[in-house]
Amino acid sequence: MSTEKSFAKGSAAPGPVPNGQIRLYSMRFCPFAHRTRLVLTAKGIKHDTININLKDKPDWFLERNPLGLVPTLENPAGEVIYDSPITCDYLEEVYTEKKLLPSSPFGKAQQKMMLEHFSKVTPYFYKIPMGRKNGEDVSALEGELKEKFAKLNEDLVNKKTKFFGGDSITMIDYMMWPWFERLEIFELKHCLDGTPELKKWTERMLEDTAVKATMHSVDTYKAFYKTYVEGKPNYDYGL
Amino acid sequence: MSTEKSFAKGSAAPGPVPNGQIRLYSMRFCPFAHRTRLVLTAKGIKHDTININLKDKPDWFLERNPLGLVPTLENPAGEVIYDSPITCDYLEEVYTEKKLLPSSPFGKAQQKMMLEHFSKVTPYFYKIPMGRKNGEDVSALEGELKEKFAKLNEDLVNKKTKFFGGDSITMIDYMMWPWFERLEIFELKHCLDGTPELKKWTERMLEDTAVKATMHSVDTYKAFYKTYVEGKPNYDYGL
Repeated sequence: MSTEKSFAKGSAAPGPVPNGQIRLYSMRFCPFAHRTRLVLTAKGIKHDTININLKDKPDWFLERNPLGLVPTLENPAGEVIYDSPITCDYLEEVYTEKKLLPSSPFGKAQQKMMLEHFSKVTPYFYKIPMGRKNGEDVSALEGELKEKFAKLNEDLVNKKTKFFGGDSITMIDYMMWPWFERLEIFELKHCLDGTPELKKWTERMLEDTAVKATMHSVDTYKAFYKTYVEGKPNYDYGL
Repeated sequence: MSTEKSFAKGSAAPGPVPNGQIRLYSMRFCPFAHRTRLVLTAKGIKHDTININLKDKPDWFLERNPLGLVPTLENPAGEVIYDSPITCDYLEEVYTEKKLLPSSPFGKAQQKMMLEHFSKVTPYFYKIPMGRKNGEDVSALEGELKEKFAKLNEDLVNKKTKFFGGDSITMIDYMMWPWFERLEIFELKHCLDGTPELKKWTERMLEDTAVKATMHSVDTYKAFYKTYVEGKPNYDYGL
């Protein structure tokens, strides 16, 4: 992309999606959009990225997705796909060269069940920082998050695999990764102390090409989240 | 099935799942398990059904699914699949003769997006009856439900199709149906008054063979929900 700066209300709508590629509507720091960015990168899919100012959304974006959420995909036919797991499954179905999901129906079901479990983890990444901000005692919430991490750790121990879907990275690893990349920013890194296998998984993930390519530095995240918490998110921080 | 009576704690575990068929762990009145029952029936899949006493779950069931939820599927290899959309997608992938999902990636994504929207509808079927029971004013909640129904109605009007995925029944219709079958029991039938296309859809659904085969009478539902609300659900009512 020539520019990644975010589009706000009043901006000119981008042109149609060129043939042979796909478009991602994103926000650079959104963990859900990060899932789709990981899959696009891992599969080497030709795409452009339109970042959206989520505090001041363009009308042309709301016309494409009335929910106004990122990630949203648009293909050259003008078809629009949203909701992060749905966008990733769509990419997996359309771009079949590098498969991220197992081929067996049970293997696919396992990945979906893991994702369903993980959907109970992500809310802690908001509840704990928010609680701290409000001066609340978050030790019980941290305890719950540690329990969830212990379950993930146990899963890796039982499977004896390097990643959650086997010895190489599969879809589920990418679906979970964005929140682990943000552990330090949310001051939750200590929650990994009792879960060595899960910690090793995060170290292995950090070596992945797609993870590296879609990553922000801790400093950049911290600077962005400061503006976010202050209610004036600087979506273009660092550009 | 020779008997559909529910299994409680202390009951003997059922034998292994015979080759060439699949097993559904269910509860006869559960709308989520109803989804899987519809798909099993519509696709003509050979299966047995083990109903679970959800107030007093057998240990052997919790060993299979630690979450203890229905629907849960088990195949002859002892593989366990749970969470209603995941069980239905699994059945669709394994039993390919009568397809319920479109073949195109975008068609599949559309069904998932519709399901995601519908997941915001089902909570009203608990909140409204519960609010009424507690003597609360539920008119605002009813208004919200009517708005959701209006969106579904608009969707059918725009698509000009008989069902949500086209002119014949597809997966999404079965995913939504269980709550519409229960409209009368929850005294929510009047919420369809302003949505004639959606009402026509319910009438078309009632003509479907799988819908007919998996249905309970309003009297049976009412009798069960009476025991449910009283805190002593009679899972075997009517057997």
